[in-house]
Amino acid sequence: MVSQQQWERRTQWPMAGVALCFLVAYSCQVLLDLTGTWQAVCAVVILGSWVLFFVDYTARLILADQRLRWFAHHLFDFAVVLLPAIRPLQLLRLLAMLSVMHRAVGGAIRGKVMMYTIASSVLLIYVASLAMLEAERGHPDSTVTTFGEALWWSMATVTTVGYGDFSPVTTTGRFVAAGLMIGGISLIGVVTATIASWIVEQVSEGDAAHQAATALQIEELRNEVARLGERLESDSVRP
Amino acid sequence: MVSQQQWERRTQWPMAGVALCFLVAYSCQVLLDLTGTWQAVCAVVILGSWVLFFVDYTARLILADQRLRWFAHHLFDFAVVLLPAIRPLQLLRLLAMLSVMHRAVGGAIRGKVMMYTIASSVLLIYVASLAMLEAERGHPDSTVTTFGEALWWSMATVTTVGYGDFSPVTTTGRFVAAGLMIGGISLIGVVTATIASWIVEQVSEGDAAHQAATALQIEELRNEVARLGERLESDSVRP
Amino acid sequence: MVSQQQWERRTQWPMAGVALCFLVAYSCQVLLDLTGTWQAVCAVVILGSWVLFFVDYTARLILADQRLRWFAHHLFDFAVVLLPAIRPLQLLRLLAMLSVMHRAVGGAIRGKVMMYTIASSVLLIYVASLAMLEAERGHPDSTVTTFGEALWWSMATVTTVGYGDFSPVTTTGRFVAAGLMIGGISLIGVVTATIASWIVEQVSEGDAAHQAATALQIEELRNEVARLGERLESDSVRP
Amino acid sequence: MVSQQQWERRTQWPMAGVALCFLVAYSCQVLLDLTGTWQAVCAVVILGSWVLFFVDYTARLILADQRLRWFAHHLFDFAVVLLPAIRPLQLLRLLAMLSVMHRAVGGAIRGKVMMYTIASSVLLIYVASLAMLEAERGHPDSTVTTFGEALWWSMATVTTVGYGDFSPVTTTGRFVAAGLMIGGISLIGVVTATIASWIVEQVSEGDAAHQAATALQIEELRNEVARLGERLESDSVRP
Repeated sequence: MVSQQQWERRTQWPMAGVALCFLVAYSCQVLLDLTGTWQAVCAVVILGSWVLFFVDYTARLILADQRLRWFAHHLFDFAVVLLPAIRPLQLLRLLAMLSVMHRAVGGAIRGKVMMYTIASSVLLIYVASLAMLEAERGHPDSTVTTFGEALWWSMATVTTVGYGDFSPVTTTGRFVAAGLMIGGISLIGVVTATIASWIVEQVSEGDAAHQAATALQIEELRNEVARLGERLESDSVRP
Repeated sequence: MVSQQQWERRTQWPMAGVALCFLVAYSCQVLLDLTGTWQAVCAVVILGSWVLFFVDYTARLILADQRLRWFAHHLFDFAVVLLPAIRPLQLLRLLAMLSVMHRAVGGAIRGKVMMYTIASSVLLIYVASLAMLEAERGHPDSTVTTFGEALWWSMATVTTVGYGDFSPVTTTGRFVAAGLMIGGISLIGVVTATIASWIVEQVSEGDAAHQAATALQIEELRNEVARLGERLESDSVRP
Repeated sequence: MVSQQQWERRTQWPMAGVALCFLVAYSCQVLLDLTGTWQAVCAVVILGSWVLFFVDYTARLILADQRLRWFAHHLFDFAVVLLPAIRPLQLLRLLAMLSVMHRAVGGAIRGKVMMYTIASSVLLIYVASLAMLEAERGHPDSTVTTFGEALWWSMATVTTVGYGDFSPVTTTGRFVAAGLMIGGISLIGVVTATIASWIVEQVSEGDAAHQAATALQIEELRNEVARLGERLESDSVRP
Repeated sequence: MVSQQQWERRTQWPMAGVALCFLVAYSCQVLLDLTGTWQAVCAVVILGSWVLFFVDYTARLILADQRLRWFAHHLFDFAVVLLPAIRPLQLLRLLAMLSVMHRAVGGAIRGKVMMYTIASSVLLIYVASLAMLEAERGHPDSTVTTFGEALWWSMATVTTVGYGDFSPVTTTGRFVAAGLMIGGISLIGVVTATIASWIVEQVSEGDAAHQAATALQIEELRNEVARLGERLESDSVRP
């Protein structure tokens, strides 16, 4: 029987592929006016991807050493099984994998954080717009009727601007909006934090004398003390 | 006579229980269409909890060493006695207690901060929605008529999105909104600060050579110098 | 002839008093329906305070060593002379003075920053509401007609929530709003920064071994090395 | 043939001039009701500046060592060629040059960051208002009809307040708005980060004993150890 790590390593790429298939099928279903065969294909892909997500989640839960602990630390994966709109966010895992490959080559952490943030934001806005459009367009009071309007509304929500020219009226739409708002606060947080980290570094580099002592400098000092000790040793031996 | 510390230690859990009772009774009163006996029960629980909060506050004020100073540092507790809507926030004390228990076991501070933030936000949004609904639903111009709408409005306010599809028209409702806005700014602050602290740590761990010198390294260096001193001592004794 | 420092030290308290008088007179003029003598008294106080602000500004400009440089670094003081709504913000100087007194006693910098932020926010919201009410209430399209509504609008603007139930329609009102928005962004910045500084400190205190090396530790290490040097000195003298 | 660095050094000031010309011509075209000759002059300047931007971009791309890599790292320059509204932002380069000159004289990094932020914000708001006005005023549903309203809308958007009294209805206007929102989040980030860096510095300066060890202190300690080593050397030689 395989361990949980083995399972996760082997299913990483296939599951990212499943998430991509789901995203394409979901996009087609919402954006295109499908009928007949194509509608059936989309429905099958969406259902099939759900089955695969469910199997993957169950397998990882069963293979976990401490199942309750694993469940508590993977609530997001649980939500993926329950809520279709969250599923495409699994694609961010792809990014995590690319990031690991990138680390081998080397590169700044802040750059990776920004790349990850931009990719997450774009994916989040796209998926939220799809979910919003699907939820709202059937409702009589709804103001969101096209994908362009849904995208515009998502952008205004994720940046916490919130004009109010478009706002969800259905319960599903409001849950999507709540997710976007939380995403928006995190987005502001990541942007601010990255800039703060950069400024702190710049300021400390500005005046070399007041710079924090580095581990390298302590290491050099230690070598000096060690050399002193060796000389002392040889002195006491000589006479 | 007991000291203030003793009083607070002994009343911590009972007062958290009182806050929970108040929250349940307040929720029932606002959300359910109570009549007869149940309405009376709710009213009694709410009144009783207020009396207990008042007694607790007075006792702590009397037992304080410097009463004026204590009063100035515990304005929040004073507000709890005056404003019913703030009372359930006392439940956050429970969390503080759990956090103390958790510390014994060990765990990251950032994790605790995030747990505390999520719990506070959920409690704040729930209580603010209750208070908002109670304040607004009687007013003719009000747009907030159901608990779902109040929750949706709270979410949009605490994230500072503010669509404006629902907004308070009563003075009470606007005070609740002001509290939520302040909570929202603090929420953004905590999220950003936690991410910033994490990024700063990641960046400094990235390049070991430019890492800040740690107290551990200084300690090791000091031991080396001390060993040098001992050897010198033994040298000067030998001949 | 006095120096600029002497002038500023001597006029600090009187000018804070003038700012307070202006605030009271301005509040009365906007909030109360004054007629006859009282209206004239308010007008005289407002005009008189402007004359004193103008005299103070001119005196400081003349007494400055590098007048152009001083002008460039004191654009806020220049705005105080030109714009009546900014004048009461001079009261924040009082706070700065209290803060200096407090420093002698000792106390955390974060505490001072928060105290300063809260006081500035309250004063800013109050003054902006007054200015907003004065600018908007005469306009036919305006929605802001009472001080309570102006306060509510200020609160929603400074926290960047911006419901849009009230928004300025006059040019003056929009300038006041722009000032509040800038104040709001700064407010979020200060709150976040203070929390971030606190979290960074907590995290670094959490694990003593990985804490940054402090100047105190280096000082102790240096003493140890110095003692070693003295012993060596006495050794080489003895034989 | 010149290298890319030489080209960029030589074209820096001319291209900043071209950007300024474009900004003036674009402002005139949008804000003034031009006819006849003046309209033609504006059109020629706008077209001419585009040609120069295109030539500059192509030259830099051709002169680059790794063209694909350069393209990926200069997506903003690519956008400048495609989108007229972004072109005046090239003027920020002027600021970067001034900043370099300033560095020679010396000065705090935080001050430079704030200066850069203020200048970018003002330029961004001005250009976005122009682009918004041009995009929206022809549309029948649009609420933005004057430059003052466009400025007011830009201010409310960049600070993420978003009242919703004015909001774009055209696709172009919404793209401009999206750019402003991203600018707004960055603005909040920079303001917060600068304040955070300042507070962290103030807090660490507050208590000298717990201050981080500086490179200067380590240097002094090292000198002491070196002196010790020299004395030891001379001791072992003497007898």
